[in-house]
Amino acid sequence: MSGTGFHTRQLAVVGLGLMGGSLAMALRGHADVIVGVDQVARSREIALERGIVDEATDDLRAACREADTVALCAPVRIILSIVRGRLGAYLRSNTFVIDIGSTKEDICEAMGQLPIGVQAIGGHPMTGKETSGIESSDAYLYRQRPFVLCSTRRTTPAARLRALSFVEALGGEGIEMDAHRHDRTVAAISHLPYLLSAALVATVKSEGDKDSAVWDLAAGGFRDTSRLAASNLDMMGDILSTNTQAVAALLARFRAHLALLEAALIDEDGEEITQLLRPVRQARIDWQKHYERKR
Amino acid sequence: MSGTGFHTRQLAVVGLGLMGGSLAMALRGHADVIVGVDQVARSREIALERGIVDEATDDLRAACREADTVALCAPVRIILSIVRGRLGAYLRSNTFVIDIGSTKEDICEAMGQLPIGVQAIGGHPMTGKETSGIESSDAYLYRQRPFVLCSTRRTTPAARLRALSFVEALGGEGIEMDAHRHDRTVAAISHLPYLLSAALVATVKSEGDKDSAVWDLAAGGFRDTSRLAASNLDMMGDILSTNTQAVAALLARFRAHLALLEAALIDEDGEEITQLLRPVRQARIDWQKHYERKR
Repeated sequence: MSGTGFHTRQLAVVGLGLMGGSLAMALRGHADVIVGVDQVARSREIALERGIVDEATDDLRAACREADTVALCAPVRIILSIVRGRLGAYLRSNTFVIDIGSTKEDICEAMGQLPIGVQAIGGHPMTGKETSGIESSDAYLYRQRPFVLCSTRRTTPAARLRALSFVEALGGEGIEMDAHRHDRTVAAISHLPYLLSAALVATVKSEGDKDSAVWDLAAGGFRDTSRLAASNLDMMGDILSTNTQAVAALLARFRAHLALLEAALIDEDGEEITQLLRPVRQARIDWQKHYERKR
Repeated sequence: MSGTGFHTRQLAVVGLGLMGGSLAMALRGHADVIVGVDQVARSREIALERGIVDEATDDLRAACREADTVALCAPVRIILSIVRGRLGAYLRSNTFVIDIGSTKEDICEAMGQLPIGVQAIGGHPMTGKETSGIESSDAYLYRQRPFVLCSTRRTTPAARLRALSFVEALGGEGIEMDAHRHDRTVAAISHLPYLLSAALVATVKSEGDKDSAVWDLAAGGFRDTSRLAASNLDMMGDILSTNTQAVAALLARFRAHLALLEAALIDEDGEEITQLLRPVRQARIDWQKHYERKR
């Protein structure tokens, strides 16, 4: 595969946060010049000081004019406004454009409206960190993690191959699927868990407001189940608002499963409870093995 | 506090699993003789081989006859059947009885029916491990962990003090509260999270049955939110069936919080979503600090 190695003359990384900084670091040997774009002066300074980028600007046009690869590494709503906005006018023909947004249907739809000749594909690396910001950048952030690729109306066969070698250069594992299927999948494994976690904390908080012992006794089970409730609000707001339909469908299914458990509980039907919970437990155990094998 | 140190002549540990084995190990220097009781020969053998107990038997009566302390370290339903069964007839007057069951109202009610003269108190150590069984025993399992104590009709003032010194000998932190309040609290922080985790896995499983990409892309967020779904079924069945009312009340409250989030989402009311989620996020962050400070 090294023969098909990714190389670009000028890489523009739009958004100098954890994801963009890590992407720039991982692609250091694959680009002649890396230009970072961010509105925040301090992020640009850090990126330059640490040698994460060669140049930094707040001018999207200046960064894109000479770029043959543009990586959009911002929150979903910002990626959307960039792609729907002036980006198309700034790009040279044949420029490769990829993003890292957490939902894909809206972004891929917008990418499909870019000028003919632009090579655009949606991306979603399944990776992250507890900490954010360019200062947390890590060249290994994408290593051995799934990186979903969603074709758009502007994805030629050559762009697909370019995207796969781009992901390979990052050390990630490319998984191609259409944007609709991606959004449905992450609604199940990521957005639904977030909402449950938030509603759990809201419930525990209303108990804790009446009796603080709740907070004193909460331990590992609560810690894990509620962890996602501490996620960044802007990011989650963006994600949820661009995936409402899939999330609502999954919520309806979740409520149905929860209602079955509750009914069996209230009926004091221990056999039914066990029949409901046994395959669930097994599925979780099987997945854990699957997950650890991959890592 | 060392002047009030716990000491017992003969300690009977009923149930040689992780909790009972760890308790016996932690109390090694506080008892002249430790007798283990279990129906499973292999558990008794391991307990003897490793010196966790001095004697082991499957005969509850034989173990209790000479005991001045009896620790019931079995699942909730078994504790209940022991306390409601012949235990009272086997105990000498003034014997101190404590349990480690995860729900307390039913057990404390049953303890209140023991013969006058028995010194019985309900206990719930907020500790555990991923692995179970006597072979996972750990003398430090109870260290610096909350150990809830719930008085019963058979808890004299002397029994309360004895219970506190018992917990101190284990290295735990005694927290006294009534059984009803305990059960409500753990419904919020433990049983509700378990049910959500199980219903989440049921939902993801129904998606995964249609599209296996769901299992491939699931990562850290799903892992943490779903971890409790792999809990031991017998244990969880016991717990839920002895805390149905509190769990049902918390489920109703949870559904209300989730419905508010969903309504704001479907209304595409980003401001309302943020208003709902911001205090939740802050509560989770505050609790994490509180939790880490204690540990």
